[in-house]
Amino acid sequence: MRRLVMIWALLATPLAAQVEQGPPNAEFEPAFPAQTRAPALKETAVQADWLVRGLSNPWGIAVLPDGRMLVSERPGRLRLIGPEGVSEPINGLPEVDARRQGGLLDVAVRPDFDRTRQVWWTYAKRVDGGTVTAAATGRLSEDGTRMQDVQDIFVQEPPSPNPMHYGSRIVFGPDGMAFITTGEHFSRSERQLAQDLDTTYGKVVRVTPMGDVPPDNPFVGEDGLDTIWSYGHRNMQGAVIGPQGRLWTIEHGPAGGDELNRPLPGRNYGWPVISYGVNYNRSSVGSGEAVREGMEQPVYYWDPVIAPGGMMFHNGRGGFDWNGDLLIGSLNPGGLVRLRFTEGRVAGEERLLRDIGRVRDVEVLGDGTVLLLIDAPDGGIMRVRPAG
Amino acid sequence: MRRLVMIWALLATPLAAQVEQGPPNAEFEPAFPAQTRAPALKETAVQADWLVRGLSNPWGIAVLPDGRMLVSERPGRLRLIGPEGVSEPINGLPEVDARRQGGLLDVAVRPDFDRTRQVWWTYAKRVDGGTVTAAATGRLSEDGTRMQDVQDIFVQEPPSPNPMHYGSRIVFGPDGMAFITTGEHFSRSERQLAQDLDTTYGKVVRVTPMGDVPPDNPFVGEDGLDTIWSYGHRNMQGAVIGPQGRLWTIEHGPAGGDELNRPLPGRNYGWPVISYGVNYNRSSVGSGEAVREGMEQPVYYWDPVIAPGGMMFHNGRGGFDWNGDLLIGSLNPGGLVRLRFTEGRVAGEERLLRDIGRVRDVEVLGDGTVLLLIDAPDGGIMRVRPAG
Repeated sequence: MRRLVMIWALLATPLAAQVEQGPPNAEFEPAFPAQTRAPALKETAVQADWLVRGLSNPWGIAVLPDGRMLVSERPGRLRLIGPEGVSEPINGLPEVDARRQGGLLDVAVRPDFDRTRQVWWTYAKRVDGGTVTAAATGRLSEDGTRMQDVQDIFVQEPPSPNPMHYGSRIVFGPDGMAFITTGEHFSRSERQLAQDLDTTYGKVVRVTPMGDVPPDNPFVGEDGLDTIWSYGHRNMQGAVIGPQGRLWTIEHGPAGGDELNRPLPGRNYGWPVISYGVNYNRSSVGSGEAVREGMEQPVYYWDPVIAPGGMMFHNGRGGFDWNGDLLIGSLNPGGLVRLRFTEGRVAGEERLLRDIGRVRDVEVLGDGTVLLLIDAPDGGIMRVRPAG
Repeated sequence: MRRLVMIWALLATPLAAQVEQGPPNAEFEPAFPAQTRAPALKETAVQADWLVRGLSNPWGIAVLPDGRMLVSERPGRLRLIGPEGVSEPINGLPEVDARRQGGLLDVAVRPDFDRTRQVWWTYAKRVDGGTVTAAATGRLSEDGTRMQDVQDIFVQEPPSPNPMHYGSRIVFGPDGMAFITTGEHFSRSERQLAQDLDTTYGKVVRVTPMGDVPPDNPFVGEDGLDTIWSYGHRNMQGAVIGPQGRLWTIEHGPAGGDELNRPLPGRNYGWPVISYGVNYNRSSVGSGEAVREGMEQPVYYWDPVIAPGGMMFHNGRGGFDWNGDLLIGSLNPGGLVRLRFTEGRVAGEERLLRDIGRVRDVEVLGDGTVLLLIDAPDGGIMRVRPAG
């Protein structure tokens, strides 16, 4: 119980401005060719402690306005964590396809949760013909035990035989529009669909808070599905709204090709035609090129890869000199990756806490506290603090 | 009880596509000078019957996804009408300032009501220093008896001493953004504030479904309040999203100057600098001009006036040959005004049901049924059908 009391003391801090702070990156223009292997930043002395342990492959974390947290467990459970401890699984969630990389994935709280109690989540869904990434919404009951009026908001097409590369994250822009990231299900034939505008493999999808198509989506009235925002992505498990209110995504690339992007509407991010790195069997990717006219360069790429989970910009509070820095969870080698931006370029990179394991999601609270979701059968939430 | 059973049989019809149908008016460009006194249309034989009687100055009507209706009564009550009859007033509404033209005004159901149960309404609010138009939101309890988690979304500034010219309507665009119309509180000094971008008198206001400022609002980052969409309006009691997904408003003008507008972002609709007609004391309005560079012309104006309430486009169903026509409630002389559009111009006008009294709001159901809200101390809802 002591541990849970500590959690509450932590979460009772102000959560305003929780999402984004930092210097302007509005005019950030990816370099050509893209940046990689930025200089090492001055190391930050930090320590990480368990806040909650015993969660089963936790995947996504979201903070409610009252400071409590929702955490998804990939096998299909969603739990509420607050002063009363860790709840039993919330009832009313849909069945999830929890094979391989599938299951219950991200969880997000709608910005107007205090009025609407709307929670969104992504999950692997079994459908006729295979498995897909889906996003659903529900209303958390007043007592926090049930999800009510659950409906799918988005269902990826077409069904895949492969329970792999589902993505996915959900983030809400300042205009209330939701971005949902997907994957391309990995197989050599399916990955081609990341370039196919009649499917939602390897896409950023954008919908209104009602789940409808925003009239200003780039393919409305054009060839291509109305819900698509950007395409040519591989497997995006991280997304965040940046200091300027714009979308950033991060994706699992091939060997030597994990990518940080700032997806713009209607743009093609190249997979599987161009990429940095090579396939994991050492064959070259697509055209064998990393740059091509009409396809976008990433903001940054990693070689060797970091296997990125979720990410969040830091607000410089809590004793961290990290204002505007991007914190990225790494699954392999594990730990935390920090990027600093200066004048629209990546100025440096730091690797922290490599020994804590697979970080599937990162949350930055209003007071600067950093929470890491450790994806393991006996996983949980770790809190990062400045050391000493 | 027989009457209420009849209501239910009516409302159980499909409500899809309830809002808008009709020919494209996308490229509608107001004429210069504006159109008025369009040719009379071929008369439609219609009959109107009471569906619900005994409502006290009903002001706004909104249809829920299940076919039930919410109706506001200006003294401050909101009622649910369904197969079980007319409900007792819904609990939890805020206190309203029900003097003169004030009180509980419009009611609107958010497009995602089936998941969120979110209802929005406008009302006259008593604040320090006077009275203002406000918009609030609440969650209708599952049993329909209470409004929960009520919060103001918008509060007009500055407070006025005059309980007059409050507007107001709420409509949701296809991107989920909400437009809220206001008034300018009528007095000679206050009406000037319709031109003042630091107040929300005589403005169309636009907010996200969360009640936040949409980043693409025209005055974000400019001089002027971030919530303003358009300005220079008088007293807008009608608003609707048209067949092309764009906002239309209608406003009470001076004598001979009621205006139908299609407000574009950041544009100035002229009040009280330019206007058709004259003040009700027969003095000229503002500059005495009806057109001026840098100020917009209305789509259409009325001389003599119709004192417009709410409005809605018809879908051509239910035996009416009215596809794409705009139906406008008239308070004085009363009844219904129909406008037909052809090739981006107002092609004709019809006056119907002049003897039924003050029509404060119009609702068109999915099956083409037209409902009129009769604003009287012993008012109610009338249903319009083709005669014979």
